[in-house]
Amino acid sequence: MSNGKLILVRHGQSKWNESNQFTGWVDVDLTEKGEQEAVNAGKLLVEKGIAPDIVFTSLLRRAIRTANIALNAADRHWIPVVRNWRLNERHYGKLQGLNKAEIRAEFGEEQFMTWRRSYDTPPPELEDDNEYSQANDPRYANLPQVPRTECLKDVVERFLPFYEDVILPEALQGKTVMLAAHGNSLRALVKHLDNISDDDIAGLNIPTGMPLVYEIGERGAVLNPGGTYLDPEAAAAGAAAVANQGNQK
Amino acid sequence: MSNGKLILVRHGQSKWNESNQFTGWVDVDLTEKGEQEAVNAGKLLVEKGIAPDIVFTSLLRRAIRTANIALNAADRHWIPVVRNWRLNERHYGKLQGLNKAEIRAEFGEEQFMTWRRSYDTPPPELEDDNEYSQANDPRYANLPQVPRTECLKDVVERFLPFYEDVILPEALQGKTVMLAAHGNSLRALVKHLDNISDDDIAGLNIPTGMPLVYEIGERGAVLNPGGTYLDPEAAAAGAAAVANQGNQK
Repeated sequence: MSNGKLILVRHGQSKWNESNQFTGWVDVDLTEKGEQEAVNAGKLLVEKGIAPDIVFTSLLRRAIRTANIALNAADRHWIPVVRNWRLNERHYGKLQGLNKAEIRAEFGEEQFMTWRRSYDTPPPELEDDNEYSQANDPRYANLPQVPRTECLKDVVERFLPFYEDVILPEALQGKTVMLAAHGNSLRALVKHLDNISDDDIAGLNIPTGMPLVYEIGERGAVLNPGGTYLDPEAAAAGAAAVANQGNQK
Repeated sequence: MSNGKLILVRHGQSKWNESNQFTGWVDVDLTEKGEQEAVNAGKLLVEKGIAPDIVFTSLLRRAIRTANIALNAADRHWIPVVRNWRLNERHYGKLQGLNKAEIRAEFGEEQFMTWRRSYDTPPPELEDDNEYSQANDPRYANLPQVPRTECLKDVVERFLPFYEDVILPEALQGKTVMLAAHGNSLRALVKHLDNISDDDIAGLNIPTGMPLVYEIGERGAVLNPGGTYLDPEAAAAGAAAVANQGNQK
């Protein structure tokens, strides 16, 4: 038996989305626009009659605050929350903190797209003494090794076990499960849910602040392949904007 | 072994603190002043070098948002959070939504203080069809019966088992445990921690947004009786203001 749902929400615009910098594990806050996107996501849930029963977030402020703000707007601020590093954004290695357009100009389109969208090629490692390293961040003190860089494959490998062991069982009980997470942790999950190939996942972009709903059947089967955006037009425009990053300055 | 701490934080000013109405289980939001109090509480934690490892809140927005805002300000937004109705404010029965000064004028000082501070006399019950009832609130759907009124004794009886079973064990592991809760759920806890009599608890007032720290020893013994306010002067002024409610309009 399952009438469970997953609601995937990528955090609203962050300060480094706005300034077009690679963010990764750097704990950047939302912009005012990002806060408003989170409010809108919450209102959309109410409008569509979708009430989350539990929420999962990463350990990063932009996802945590997106969950807090959206749930507050949806009058579901009181549901249980689970925060785990396995939902974190992909660690962008040495690119963390750097401007996307500058990287693209310096290294060329091909290298840029490889780092950004290749499934299994990570960017160069970030040194532990770099100002944007998380090597000494107390929230990761329980990890044997804080990542120095990750490709999407690494994200799949660290996130899916948690999805299968902890998140999916909630949906299989019939719950509506919200995930407030990141472009690449959500891409890792969508790749799994929709069985997208290592090559084709490069073309998938997830817009910020747009709830994407998956209906979950027995054994975690997706009943609506591709999922359903609650506001499909706004989501299409948002995905196009994400794809276009690196062209803007 | 225990170097555990409890940090008690009463939520910042709510809209009904400001308008001097009995609130109880009505899910009133913070005022801007209340949000600022929460920010200040978080900054004070940083200043004093106190880093919460886990936070417990009620199911009410004013406590949940106080926790979110304070922890965000303290850069501890990522710690685990547990939300439970047993930390809720006392249910104020038929007084919920009514103005404190008006109640006092209509029923007289003695009745007012009995309802407000008597240990074991609850106010009259709130009808389930009253606009301020929580009888049909989904967040309490797992309770056999949603309270219609409570005295402080009722709060002690529903909160202390959760404290002893769930909260205290965290402190006994050496953790710094934050509780973002309410005037009366925190009074219930302080009564227990400091072994205050049923009569004397009437005189205890807890100010909003002022972190109060208890050092916890073996078997939950309090090592600093009375607790330690991180900002004692501001806390004394705040407690006096709480005591004075009902005199203002």
